[in-house]
Amino acid sequence: MKTFINPNQSTWSTLLKRPTQTIDDIETTVTQIFDDVQRNGDQAVAKYTQLFDGVELDSNSVTTKEVELASSNISSELKQAIQQAKQNIETFHKAQQTETISIETTIGVTCWQEKRAINKVGIYIPAGSAPLFSTVLMLAVPAQIAGCKEIVLCSPPNKEGNIANEILYAAQLCGVTKIIKVGGIQAIAGLTFGTESIPQVYKIFGPGNQFVTVAKQLATKYGVAIDMPAGPSELLVAADKSANASYVASDLLSQAEHGADSQVILVSDSQDFVEEVQKEIDKQVKDLPRKDIAKNALKNSKAIIMEDANDALSLINDYAPEHLILCTNDNDFFVANIQNAGSVFIGNYSPESAGDYASGTNHTLPTNGFSKAYSGVNLDSFTKAITFQNITKEGLLNIGNTIELMAEAEGLQAHKNAVSIRLKDLK
Amino acid sequence: MKTFINPNQSTWSTLLKRPTQTIDDIETTVTQIFDDVQRNGDQAVAKYTQLFDGVELDSNSVTTKEVELASSNISSELKQAIQQAKQNIETFHKAQQTETISIETTIGVTCWQEKRAINKVGIYIPAGSAPLFSTVLMLAVPAQIAGCKEIVLCSPPNKEGNIANEILYAAQLCGVTKIIKVGGIQAIAGLTFGTESIPQVYKIFGPGNQFVTVAKQLATKYGVAIDMPAGPSELLVAADKSANASYVASDLLSQAEHGADSQVILVSDSQDFVEEVQKEIDKQVKDLPRKDIAKNALKNSKAIIMEDANDALSLINDYAPEHLILCTNDNDFFVANIQNAGSVFIGNYSPESAGDYASGTNHTLPTNGFSKAYSGVNLDSFTKAITFQNITKEGLLNIGNTIELMAEAEGLQAHKNAVSIRLKDLK
Repeated sequence: MKTFINPNQSTWSTLLKRPTQTIDDIETTVTQIFDDVQRNGDQAVAKYTQLFDGVELDSNSVTTKEVELASSNISSELKQAIQQAKQNIETFHKAQQTETISIETTIGVTCWQEKRAINKVGIYIPAGSAPLFSTVLMLAVPAQIAGCKEIVLCSPPNKEGNIANEILYAAQLCGVTKIIKVGGIQAIAGLTFGTESIPQVYKIFGPGNQFVTVAKQLATKYGVAIDMPAGPSELLVAADKSANASYVASDLLSQAEHGADSQVILVSDSQDFVEEVQKEIDKQVKDLPRKDIAKNALKNSKAIIMEDANDALSLINDYAPEHLILCTNDNDFFVANIQNAGSVFIGNYSPESAGDYASGTNHTLPTNGFSKAYSGVNLDSFTKAITFQNITKEGLLNIGNTIELMAEAEGLQAHKNAVSIRLKDLK
Repeated sequence: MKTFINPNQSTWSTLLKRPTQTIDDIETTVTQIFDDVQRNGDQAVAKYTQLFDGVELDSNSVTTKEVELASSNISSELKQAIQQAKQNIETFHKAQQTETISIETTIGVTCWQEKRAINKVGIYIPAGSAPLFSTVLMLAVPAQIAGCKEIVLCSPPNKEGNIANEILYAAQLCGVTKIIKVGGIQAIAGLTFGTESIPQVYKIFGPGNQFVTVAKQLATKYGVAIDMPAGPSELLVAADKSANASYVASDLLSQAEHGADSQVILVSDSQDFVEEVQKEIDKQVKDLPRKDIAKNALKNSKAIIMEDANDALSLINDYAPEHLILCTNDNDFFVANIQNAGSVFIGNYSPESAGDYASGTNHTLPTNGFSKAYSGVNLDSFTKAITFQNITKEGLLNIGNTIELMAEAEGLQAHKNAVSIRLKDLK
């Protein structure tokens, strides 16, 4: 981790640059697979599953029997853990339910807004060295609370043609309505166009590699919404001497182990503290199974000494971190003034891991500075707001003239007429 | 308007198909202009303004003097109308403000969600035959309520190098912080990358032609959010014999005059009523200044007889109209069960024009079936939700073991360590 001391604001954008991703060369592949799946459906999907996942499947669909078997293969300890996490996520996302907002803007003009569920949603769960079943909770729990009718989960099969037990267990626990063994670009294409076995959905959620990311971006061209653009995970810790260096080191490492392109940044007012953290990192990293990944990620990472809290705040808002841990003696200052962050962890006993799994907040968050404009996944991500209006005769008499004048000024005579024809009857 | 009687569900997708748009050939142009603006800033912008708008400007920026002059050129009658519309829009969007949502998910684990403003937003207002100043109200009013610090409005200059008086008046009335004379692809590129005169923003709002639409889509690749993908405007009216045929005809025409690619659909249980409406359309269309546009749009348009209300509802949800007018003797049934629509107008005295201008609801709505997954613009469009969590020692003792087990099962040892290292001190 390289250290920078009170860097000038003009250097921040270079200093805080994310590890670059080149996606241009991927686009051709993604477009080709989309075309093929659109035209040839399951036949194309099977071809790519064989090509990329190295397995030929009799059927894409996961059976009830498979789910039952999976469930029986999970320890009761882990099941209990998953259930506690689910309950906290449920509690926090249920608290986000909103009532109808209704108001009479002018006498006789009643307007209201209601959230209604997105009926068909797709959840993509990557497979890799380990099954990321926590993401199933983060996406299926709010989908179920929102009232989504179809919750379709896609995840790539392993060489034996199976999806990990933990993913299947979490899926049935959280009300997923259909589980399909399909991954990568072909999964996103399937959810976009629909195939014989994959239902077409209205919105696709979930993380993935660069191929999945580009595929989700392409899906939006076909009218399918996505949760948000994705990028490598990142963490910024703001800590001073009131923090515990070994805790901070453990948090930075928890982020660094995600991938070599993960980015961790430490902002502190104390150089001594930064050095302590560095020592702790060196000590802790040795025993990690994923130490090579973590060490690579740490190469991209920076310690920034900011003596002035206001400057530190500006720098954090400029960076717009996905995860922000605050361990300072004035956390309230940062909490009150942070503008751009995905999720904020406050104090010495709020590690990022807590939010990744079990505190109740969602772990699907905007990376790459997107927290300047995007929310993390929340209950509203699974609904859309519809507005309604009911205007009485009196109401139209009250605003009719305004509509006529404005429509006229915009040169839209038929818009005006729609009011005039009614006003004529009312006057 | 062609009439279809009780069409079979298998034919709906063909029947309800939107007029197609081909955007592929536009993409090359858009990409080229983006590259040029990214590299050459204002110089490139000026070049395209000369090319597309046919005017050479000394300066892009609108001065306070220009705004004052514009204001003095607007009739006090129109000013009053704009102010009434603004007040209703303000009332409805202020009602959408939400409190912090805070909950203790487990003892010692407090999670909360707060909405914070998107600091820099761009508003695009097209120019054309007439100044669409109502869109300024629809976008700047909620931006100001949300607390966006920079509200940048871009609109193409006319041949004399000016933006319409009404747009300038509405902009200053609604707290726009900067007005720039720039349109089309070069405006969206400027807002995406920033130039000497155009501030870079985090999210771009507003309608536009196909070039602007493709440019906004490209902006998302560079990490700039957009309000929603756009398409031609559309209206579905569900009406029975309890409705007034001349009112319904006026509403259909108000949508049809937008553009030849606008789509209007009438759903009714009565063939007689449809014929009445058709007669009224023929009568009313004659006097419209934009009758040629309206007539062309009507060619794409359909009357669908649905004898069964449940079938009608299914068809409407399948189509997912941007605007939905309900004039039936059982509007409550449709209101309760509609799943997909942008904005709904209820009863004989709620024409779409009311929502276009002055009732208080927003007129920036999802077209092209996007209301299956997207909300119309609302207050939340100008904010993002940030989550926070504060976990006490007791809280971490309560959920620590769950985190450890789940992290272990996901093969993320450093995630587990971040908890274990703390629990060791606490136990």
